[in-house]
Amino acid sequence: MKILIIGGAGTIGKKVSGHFAKKHEVLTAGRHSGDVTVDITDSRSIKAMFESVGPVDAAVCIAGEAKWAAFDAMTEEDYHIGLNSKLMGQVNLVRIGQKYLNAGGSFTLTTGILADHPVLLTTSAAMVNGGIHSFVKAVSLELKNEIRINVVSSGLVEDAVDKYEAYFPGHNPIPMRKVVNGYVKSVEGKSTGEIIRMYDNC
Amino acid sequence: MKILIIGGAGTIGKKVSGHFAKKHEVLTAGRHSGDVTVDITDSRSIKAMFESVGPVDAAVCIAGEAKWAAFDAMTEEDYHIGLNSKLMGQVNLVRIGQKYLNAGGSFTLTTGILADHPVLLTTSAAMVNGGIHSFVKAVSLELKNEIRINVVSSGLVEDAVDKYEAYFPGHNPIPMRKVVNGYVKSVEGKSTGEIIRMYDNC
Repeated sequence: MKILIIGGAGTIGKKVSGHFAKKHEVLTAGRHSGDVTVDITDSRSIKAMFESVGPVDAAVCIAGEAKWAAFDAMTEEDYHIGLNSKLMGQVNLVRIGQKYLNAGGSFTLTTGILADHPVLLTTSAAMVNGGIHSFVKAVSLELKNEIRINVVSSGLVEDAVDKYEAYFPGHNPIPMRKVVNGYVKSVEGKSTGEIIRMYDNC
Repeated sequence: MKILIIGGAGTIGKKVSGHFAKKHEVLTAGRHSGDVTVDITDSRSIKAMFESVGPVDAAVCIAGEAKWAAFDAMTEEDYHIGLNSKLMGQVNLVRIGQKYLNAGGSFTLTTGILADHPVLLTTSAAMVNGGIHSFVKAVSLELKNEIRINVVSSGLVEDAVDKYEAYFPGHNPIPMRKVVNGYVKSVEGKSTGEIIRMYDNC
């Protein structure tokens, strides 16, 4: 398979890219690195990425951001960071990318445990993740050419523990091999419209 | 209790308003009717509404729209209708309204079954509903002064069957007395961060 991984150099992305590269042709995209650069907040940039890469069998997105801050301190504009990036960035990736996927191909998006089990400071991040979960279920009913779509939602990943554990009291880290398997299940499996949850104690 | 019902003249809103008015002081808000007018896509209008109404014990929102269309036909701008109205309209209602709720007061937002069980044409509507579900869970961790927040998510409501049944094949309509009870559970109960689901055959 020819697999495009947006965010292929990130904490999760590099493990996922490394795994798929063992038996597939992998192309990575990122804001500042990768085989092609892309800014997912800009639809023109998404289109330019697909034009550059050409048809693929799988597009995996492990990119997108949202502001973390206390609800009291969040402005209306702060919410638009997540809406433009992790939410509409992934929606636009599917909206534009559907024309570049081979028949029977797949999209795999990324959210996270906050959609179902938020922690403090995550009103925006949780909202964006929950929106993508419902979007994936809805769009799976409409994609053509047997194109599938799933979303991987992991708990705090092992490789991000140092950076994020203070925000996730009592959360058991998810081993990277399990996180990678979420993406393998979506790309190499046959399901569609699935929220692939990898949580531990909830 | 003094209860502000945004969208109090709508299909669901008029039944909810009528019920609460039997034993509470009810004020309704709407775009073109009600005790006070409000455009929830405009933060200044939301603030003006609360300034006009003064402190309340409960703010119930049964308003907000999103575009329904085939995924193929949805433009990026089409998604922003739902993002600005049903999603950020309700977020801004909580963000601004928290200063106008009496201690121990409550917010009750509204979504719908599409968050969990979408149908064709609802990539935007489902996404917005799912976003609100996760937002409510997240913000319930942070609201102060014992202010609670819940969201009511109903299946196709009985009073909207004529207009919407073609979009919801096989969905059992939810009787209006059950829909009203979702709002009663939120306003008169003690729970917070709850998604009050009223679905039938799923």
